[in-house]
Amino acid sequence: MRYLGKQEIEDIAVGAALLGTGGGGDPYIGKLMALQAIEECGPIQVLSVDEIPDDALVVPSGMMGAPTVMVEKAPSGDEAFKTFEILEKYLGKKIYATMPIEAGGINSMLPLALAARLGLPVVDVDGMGRAFPELQMVTFYLDGISATPMVIADEKGNTTLLNTIDNLWAERIARNATIQKGGSVMMAIYPMTGRNLKDSGIHDILQLEEEIGRSIRLAKQNNVDPIREVLALTNGFELFKGKVVDVNRKTETGFARGTAKIEGMLDYKGETLELRFQNEHLIAQTENRLVCVTPDLIAVLDAETGLPITTEGLRYGARCVVVGIPCHPKWRTEKGIETCGPKYFGYEVEYTPLEELVKKGVNA
Amino acid sequence: MRYLGKQEIEDIAVGAALLGTGGGGDPYIGKLMALQAIEECGPIQVLSVDEIPDDALVVPSGMMGAPTVMVEKAPSGDEAFKTFEILEKYLGKKIYATMPIEAGGINSMLPLALAARLGLPVVDVDGMGRAFPELQMVTFYLDGISATPMVIADEKGNTTLLNTIDNLWAERIARNATIQKGGSVMMAIYPMTGRNLKDSGIHDILQLEEEIGRSIRLAKQNNVDPIREVLALTNGFELFKGKVVDVNRKTETGFARGTAKIEGMLDYKGETLELRFQNEHLIAQTENRLVCVTPDLIAVLDAETGLPITTEGLRYGARCVVVGIPCHPKWRTEKGIETCGPKYFGYEVEYTPLEELVKKGVNA
Repeated sequence: MRYLGKQEIEDIAVGAALLGTGGGGDPYIGKLMALQAIEECGPIQVLSVDEIPDDALVVPSGMMGAPTVMVEKAPSGDEAFKTFEILEKYLGKKIYATMPIEAGGINSMLPLALAARLGLPVVDVDGMGRAFPELQMVTFYLDGISATPMVIADEKGNTTLLNTIDNLWAERIARNATIQKGGSVMMAIYPMTGRNLKDSGIHDILQLEEEIGRSIRLAKQNNVDPIREVLALTNGFELFKGKVVDVNRKTETGFARGTAKIEGMLDYKGETLELRFQNEHLIAQTENRLVCVTPDLIAVLDAETGLPITTEGLRYGARCVVVGIPCHPKWRTEKGIETCGPKYFGYEVEYTPLEELVKKGVNA
Repeated sequence: MRYLGKQEIEDIAVGAALLGTGGGGDPYIGKLMALQAIEECGPIQVLSVDEIPDDALVVPSGMMGAPTVMVEKAPSGDEAFKTFEILEKYLGKKIYATMPIEAGGINSMLPLALAARLGLPVVDVDGMGRAFPELQMVTFYLDGISATPMVIADEKGNTTLLNTIDNLWAERIARNATIQKGGSVMMAIYPMTGRNLKDSGIHDILQLEEEIGRSIRLAKQNNVDPIREVLALTNGFELFKGKVVDVNRKTETGFARGTAKIEGMLDYKGETLELRFQNEHLIAQTENRLVCVTPDLIAVLDAETGLPITTEGLRYGARCVVVGIPCHPKWRTEKGIETCGPKYFGYEVEYTPLEELVKKGVNA
């Protein structure tokens, strides 16, 4: 058990945005919301999965929708309370703790803010170890855990409790409701037991996020390269260095979709890297080679500071380093790749683990 | 307390379709579903509102969507069970009885079928005394009763429990979900107390429907005019007689919308009546005069048999009598007219009570 104060929140926000691979919402807004909550309600208790009773009810909290919309339409705070209230009433059981569903600037922070305000602990676990755009794209789904009963709430005060025959239907129905309600809503989803988390979650993810954030923050004063620090913490690889020369982004069917082109510099001069994203970066390729592909992580970092750049933060002229991080082994199973590999997103490439692509790239 | 057997079901189906003013679904399908249910589970107990304890939980059951879709997509039966199960779980209270929300070929019959299968009584009350296309168009809404928590269920097994800030939001969100789920769903809505029904319901509506149906059925053998019988039971007026010469109907935004033209015969020769409908007939007018307008009832009856014709049953060449019936006094209040008068539906005419229009018409 440990407590999160302001510095920890700042660091987690940065680390989560990095693992959010361009999606997961603006880390600045998320951070402000969590800081405000601990300012008013005190530090947040964090428990490791081992500290959670097997039969305890744990419910992830987060936002659903396009992060580009979230920037303009911040939640009031009451929505998250309501989703928990309704789920407790429906399940007839108190919620023991909350947790993030994914890593991301907003969705790692919202459960912290909620925990502070409700006086609940946060479990150091999530369902992705990164960010993904759809509800069924969690390790819980791979193990057959239902996304429903789930509750969504809009900022007007309307709530919807869904029970669906499977998690793909949950995604479909909730996504449609989200679009109708203005593009983003708060949700309480995947109500689980402590046992579920132990078996199917990505453990100690907040700790990793905090370490990433801290190492980026301390790099300057320690006179070390922040990106090298990140690679060491995540077993990651530098994939590309360059300057953003083209960004094509639109919000459609509830997602921020688009492409970005990065013109190579230094070792990468003469090459252009194309990133494609749907909330998150999903595929990185040059004219000649596949560089990294979902479910492995593609993070774009500021070349100077090492800070992560979200898809909505990508600006023409930005100098950046593209980093690849191997995804959690659960994502490299057959069902993992089926659920969020390149084919699911409509890219006609086979999934190849990052480490192999890096090896090929060096030889190419 | 009384019981409904097969003959009563047959008669109620006809009477309800007549009060359904063209909407409320196909009475033949509705009737078959209710008959099948009592065939398997025995007669249905009907209680008057006075027999219901003030604190008993009563929940109307029905279908939402375009009746033209309902004809092709009959519910499996399980959907209604599910809506009640979820609502009971959420409210933490057993449902004491069910009831129809409106008069109509389908929505008067479905609660009867459900009651038979669940062994619940049906209360002799509804919220319209006719049919209307939107969820807030019930007398309960006029008295400030919430439509939510409501549950909708599709035939696949997905369910949604809604809590909305008002009944207009309930209509909006549920309508959208209905369209997405294929155009029609089962719903449990307006959970109420016995007290609510006594204060705000349209009492003894099943009894009126049964009497209407019976009088039409018996007219031939008693050698009386079925339409005259209907007018006597409902304080109604014959408004027009003629032949359907044009029907324009499409299913859009979840409704069956359109117009029908009837060429006058006998006393009405030389005039053409235009009916406009959105699931239900909402306005009837000739070249020269307004004949009848919502919330008063406009029913189209077969000139020969007196049987009601629904909007989806309107066929070129059909000989029919158009009948007007004064709506319940609750609909003639300011809020009643605001909620379902002509302006709400986009017709730029003032509401004028049927009796006045009839008087004018005779003088014109």
